[in-house]
Amino acid sequence: MKPILASTAVGLVAFALASTTLAANLTPEEQIETRQAGYSFMGWNMGKIKANLDGDYNADQVSAAANAIAGIANSGMGALYGPGTDKDIGNVKTYVKPEFFQNMEDVGKIATNFNEAANNMAEVAAGGKPAAVNTAFGNLGQACKACHDKYRADK
Amino acid sequence: MKPILASTAVGLVAFALASTTLAANLTPEEQIETRQAGYSFMGWNMGKIKANLDGDYNADQVSAAANAIAGIANSGMGALYGPGTDKDIGNVKTYVKPEFFQNMEDVGKIATNFNEAANNMAEVAAGGKPAAVNTAFGNLGQACKACHDKYRADK
Repeated sequence: MKPILASTAVGLVAFALASTTLAANLTPEEQIETRQAGYSFMGWNMGKIKANLDGDYNADQVSAAANAIAGIANSGMGALYGPGTDKDIGNVKTYVKPEFFQNMEDVGKIATNFNEAANNMAEVAAGGKPAAVNTAFGNLGQACKACHDKYRADK
Repeated sequence: MKPILASTAVGLVAFALASTTLAANLTPEEQIETRQAGYSFMGWNMGKIKANLDGDYNADQVSAAANAIAGIANSGMGALYGPGTDKDIGNVKTYVKPEFFQNMEDVGKIATNFNEAANNMAEVAAGGKPAAVNTAFGNLGQACKACHDKYRADK
C-alpha cells in the first residue's frame, strides 16, 4: 500500500494546497474563469499536438505545445477551486460537478496522474520522436478524460 | 543594423508564423477566446509572483508560476491573431487595437522581447533568489506593458 499512500499525499499537496498566496486574492468568479482559461489553453495545445501527429510533424511545435501544457498543469491549479467555486456565480458558469468537491482525495490522485502524464509528454516531446509522442499523448488524453468522465458536467 | 534586423526576423518567426497546424482549425472566435485565455492565465501567474515578492517568498511557487508564463509565451500565440480576429465577433470582444495588425514588424519585436523576458524570468526563478527574481519580474512586466500601451484598447 505504501506507494499508493505516498502518491495520494503528493496529489493532495500538488492539487489542494490553496494558500492565500496561490490564490493571489482572486474572487470565486475569477477563480472559475482562470481555471477555465487554463483548460482552454491546454485544449488548444492538445489540438496542435494532435494535428502534428495526424499531419506533418514539426518537433518544435509539439515540444512548445507540450511545455505550455506542462507549465499550466504544474502551476497549482488546485488553488482555483476555493470556497464558493462549486456552483455558478451569476453569468460565470462552472461545469465541475459537486461530487468533485466531495472527493478531494480521489481528485488529488487524478491530478497527480495528470501532472505526471503532462511532464512525461513534455519530456518525450523534447526527444522529437513521433511514435513515442503518440504514446505519451494517448496517456495524457486518458489522464484528462479520467477527470472529465467523473467530474465534468455536460455543457 | 545587423542585430536589429536579425532580432526582427526572429520576432516575425516567433510571433507571426500562423500555419494551419498552429491554428489547429480554430475559428476566429476561438482564436480570440484562446489568446485571451492565455493572457488571463499568465496574469494570474504574474499576480502570484508579485504576491510572493510582496509577502512570504516560496521559491517553488514562483518557479512554477514562471514556468507556466514561459510555456504559454513560447506556445506560438501569433497563430491566434489570424484573419478575422481584428474586431469583435458577436459577443466575443477583442481589446486589440486595429493598429496591432498594421504593424506586425513592431509587434514581432515586442513579442520577441516578451518571450526573452519570460524565459529569463523562468531561468532566474529556478535560482530561487528573490532579489534577482524581483528584477526579472520588473523586466517582464515592462515587456507586457510595451504591448499594452501601444496596442491594447481600454476595456
